[in-house]
Amino acid sequence: MPQIPADVTVSVHHVRVGYVDTDQGCVVHHGTYFRYLEHARVELLRERGVDYKHFERDNQLGLPVVDANIRYHQSARFDDLLEIKTWIAVANRAKVRFDSLIFREGTLLTHAQISLACTRLPEGRICSVPTVILDLADASLRGKRS
Amino acid sequence: MPQIPADVTVSVHHVRVGYVDTDQGCVVHHGTYFRYLEHARVELLRERGVDYKHFERDNQLGLPVVDANIRYHQSARFDDLLEIKTWIAVANRAKVRFDSLIFREGTLLTHAQISLACTRLPEGRICSVPTVILDLADASLRGKRS
Amino acid sequence: MPQIPADVTVSVHHVRVGYVDTDQGCVVHHGTYFRYLEHARVELLRERGVDYKHFERDNQLGLPVVDANIRYHQSARFDDLLEIKTWIAVANRAKVRFDSLIFREGTLLTHAQISLACTRLPEGRICSVPTVILDLADASLRGKRS
Amino acid sequence: MPQIPADVTVSVHHVRVGYVDTDQGCVVHHGTYFRYLEHARVELLRERGVDYKHFERDNQLGLPVVDANIRYHQSARFDDLLEIKTWIAVANRAKVRFDSLIFREGTLLTHAQISLACTRLPEGRICSVPTVILDLADASLRGKRS
Repeated sequence: MPQIPADVTVSVHHVRVGYVDTDQGCVVHHGTYFRYLEHARVELLRERGVDYKHFERDNQLGLPVVDANIRYHQSARFDDLLEIKTWIAVANRAKVRFDSLIFREGTLLTHAQISLACTRLPEGRICSVPTVILDLADASLRGKRS
Repeated sequence: MPQIPADVTVSVHHVRVGYVDTDQGCVVHHGTYFRYLEHARVELLRERGVDYKHFERDNQLGLPVVDANIRYHQSARFDDLLEIKTWIAVANRAKVRFDSLIFREGTLLTHAQISLACTRLPEGRICSVPTVILDLADASLRGKRS
Repeated sequence: MPQIPADVTVSVHHVRVGYVDTDQGCVVHHGTYFRYLEHARVELLRERGVDYKHFERDNQLGLPVVDANIRYHQSARFDDLLEIKTWIAVANRAKVRFDSLIFREGTLLTHAQISLACTRLPEGRICSVPTVILDLADASLRGKRS
Repeated sequence: MPQIPADVTVSVHHVRVGYVDTDQGCVVHHGTYFRYLEHARVELLRERGVDYKHFERDNQLGLPVVDANIRYHQSARFDDLLEIKTWIAVANRAKVRFDSLIFREGTLLTHAQISLACTRLPEGRICSVPTVILDLADASLRGKRS
């Protein structure tokens, strides 16, 4: 089972599974989790002082997803109240990786690693991840900045 | 049963229902149809000479939905090949209404009326529907322009 | 402006607009609201004693949407905290209609009327709306049951 | 750049990017690609003799996604006509992995590896991938069955 590193700060958020999130297999569709994980990242940023709406507008910078790895251990179902634990696992000028574990009543359902790069809007050219984002990462990670 | 008016030009498009489009009720989720209908409108515009991507970019105008009425007579299911018949039912400076009937093998499933207004981007202020859009409507409708 | 009838019980729920909910017009896509409205209906039912997950499973009954009317007065945007006020406007053996007004900081954005019928699962044949659902409606509406 | 192995059979499908598929970053939302990839898998199966709708219904078996790795090299945009090249990269009793490259006019946008397991419906217990699915894989892969 994936472990949360000892030296990171974990943010915890909850989402309620909607009917629309399911498919005819009677479980949450695999693509739906990206909405849950995005919500968790936006709320983690808010808690740590970055309002993503203002970040994007004021800096004309975006943080698009460049890489996603997700493992579905067990299925979520309609009306489940999911707990999402998220932390920053990698943070450097090239990318920021958010890792998440999704639980239902203590049972691990999903393990995700989502990497974001930084782009200049509106053209979308890659640029360095700004300091305001890197400063959100834990000191242990900041030491690993490239 | 809703009828297609005699004096309109009907565009016909097809969509294949995806697994993700279903919900645990084993039918297409009611919100999914808006993606199908949007696809039909974009293709109708393309057939009649308006590439919506260029329209938006070149004119800095948008055509947001301002009103939607949709009646679900029967359910669509996974892997159905749907036929969408679409026509312009109303066209004037204030709005353009696209009506659609969705069929599966000749059986009517859905009847939709989707009205669009025109807005200036990026702020989104309402403006007049431009002539290039009004000219797409049938002569009978163009006579009813306000 | 649409008014909430004087004699109904209004349920209030909140949703936070996600990034995925927007489109390149920089507003919430018109189809996204159906997810918000469905969430509001499920929560209204829960507050009034019906857990929809159990309702569906225990009775092998579904409540599919058969008719939707929605008017988009103003656009919601990323990260808006929306307030959804929902009440039961019609309740009889044939259908239950949930009406909703969606606000952002007191400004009306959207007005929706969503009608549900009752079907026997899994085939989806229409049946009478059961008493447990009708009993959720206000006394004034229950008097109008057909 | 990821390469297509020499000894696999590649299926090619096309999808047109819809307006709803975009987000306010003016590119296709990262979660949307899972719908495109699912469509490609269903069509690959159909081409090779397995109608997934019937497979699921007749065998009471599902093929849920258990692992997804996706790398976003460049962004897709509204109205792009995407080419999806898909092949079976791994096929054994435990899982089937579908790999896809998504192109726009010859430019690689996305590289995805999606692994499916087999489950017995409706409870969702894991079972062996049936022969009818394994037989779709190339002979070179079938030799690697565990």
